[in-house]
Amino acid sequence: MLKLYYGPGACSFVPHAALEIIRAATGEDFEARLVKLHKGEQYQPEFKAINPDSLVPVLMVEGQPLTQIIAISQYLDARYPQLELLPKEAWARARTLSTMAWMNNTVHPAFTHIFMPQKFAEDEAARAELKRYNGILFRQHLERIAGEIAKAAPYWNGEKIGFLDLYSVVFLRWGGLAGIDPDSFPGYKAFVERVAALPPVAAALERERQPLHYFKKAA
Amino acid sequence: MLKLYYGPGACSFVPHAALEIIRAATGEDFEARLVKLHKGEQYQPEFKAINPDSLVPVLMVEGQPLTQIIAISQYLDARYPQLELLPKEAWARARTLSTMAWMNNTVHPAFTHIFMPQKFAEDEAARAELKRYNGILFRQHLERIAGEIAKAAPYWNGEKIGFLDLYSVVFLRWGGLAGIDPDSFPGYKAFVERVAALPPVAAALERERQPLHYFKKAA
Repeated sequence: MLKLYYGPGACSFVPHAALEIIRAATGEDFEARLVKLHKGEQYQPEFKAINPDSLVPVLMVEGQPLTQIIAISQYLDARYPQLELLPKEAWARARTLSTMAWMNNTVHPAFTHIFMPQKFAEDEAARAELKRYNGILFRQHLERIAGEIAKAAPYWNGEKIGFLDLYSVVFLRWGGLAGIDPDSFPGYKAFVERVAALPPVAAALERERQPLHYFKKAA
Repeated sequence: MLKLYYGPGACSFVPHAALEIIRAATGEDFEARLVKLHKGEQYQPEFKAINPDSLVPVLMVEGQPLTQIIAISQYLDARYPQLELLPKEAWARARTLSTMAWMNNTVHPAFTHIFMPQKFAEDEAARAELKRYNGILFRQHLERIAGEIAKAAPYWNGEKIGFLDLYSVVFLRWGGLAGIDPDSFPGYKAFVERVAALPPVAAALERERQPLHYFKKAA
């Protein structure tokens, strides 16, 4: 049985929700293992033995760890091709992987600069500048995603839900942590709520025990 | 015919050298289109019409652009599977994609923080701190790659050269631009020189008109 190490609210939501979608469609069960990121469990020896980089997600396949969303997503797609979590047609697939790589190497790290600037600089003033400037960049990235989602019919890749939809849900939620009001992206927000309401996605959200929207309006 | 937009010394070397490897093995020709990054051609309207993000590489397939190394590499692998630029076996492939994702979202951006800190901060002092601290991180990443290369027999994935080998070549060269002496990684340096001496890889290097090693010892 596949086992996923996930952190509540983290990008591990992408494979977490995907595994629920797979379970709903195929009956294939998986084990969800909580890593309490807020308590620093990812830095403990038990977790570092699985992933020395102290990052979720980790997918355990027959006792062997697989890291990185890009790799985990493609492994799940290859194992359950009938779900078409990635498009089958060569060019559509290539374009989807390109978008996913952009999300992974540009959108996601922009948020990391806001949320964990200590990963990129030791100096406190530099960390403050990273938070500030990447807040601007992250909002631009959300605008671009919102523009693509405006064309979603009903999902990024058409009829089938896939990894781009789930990754998009993560980013708007993270925006709330960066002070971005999801109401400033009404179409994107409606999309996130529609995806979150799908029973398998809702099951993953419920297990993570996190609100869908993190944003709090100033009092 | 496939057309690749590349920048001398940039990460576009990965698909550039791969296309030379493909040509040597299959006879399939490609067009190499130079983008003069040092003259800012990537910011000109002609190139932005192809990639609004002003980044190389771009692979043109029947007039349509494909961006992102992760996506281009997999497109080339799917088109020329006989070369096994990615492993065929599912788990080996997943592990390779995991390493490639790490190179793409961690190693490569660490260098970007050194070479183009203006992408992440506007403040000059913050940019200086990014250069300094990411220099430390980039060296750690090279150490990890060197450790993997010590096990290469003869390549990352065994008998067949692949994308991880070509990406590794890029990173040690970039280290030279970040003040890292490749002689401090003798095994890694020997690997880079062995890969660079393969005729198709040498052809890509020659077209780019760049030295293999950028490092200059202090006088």
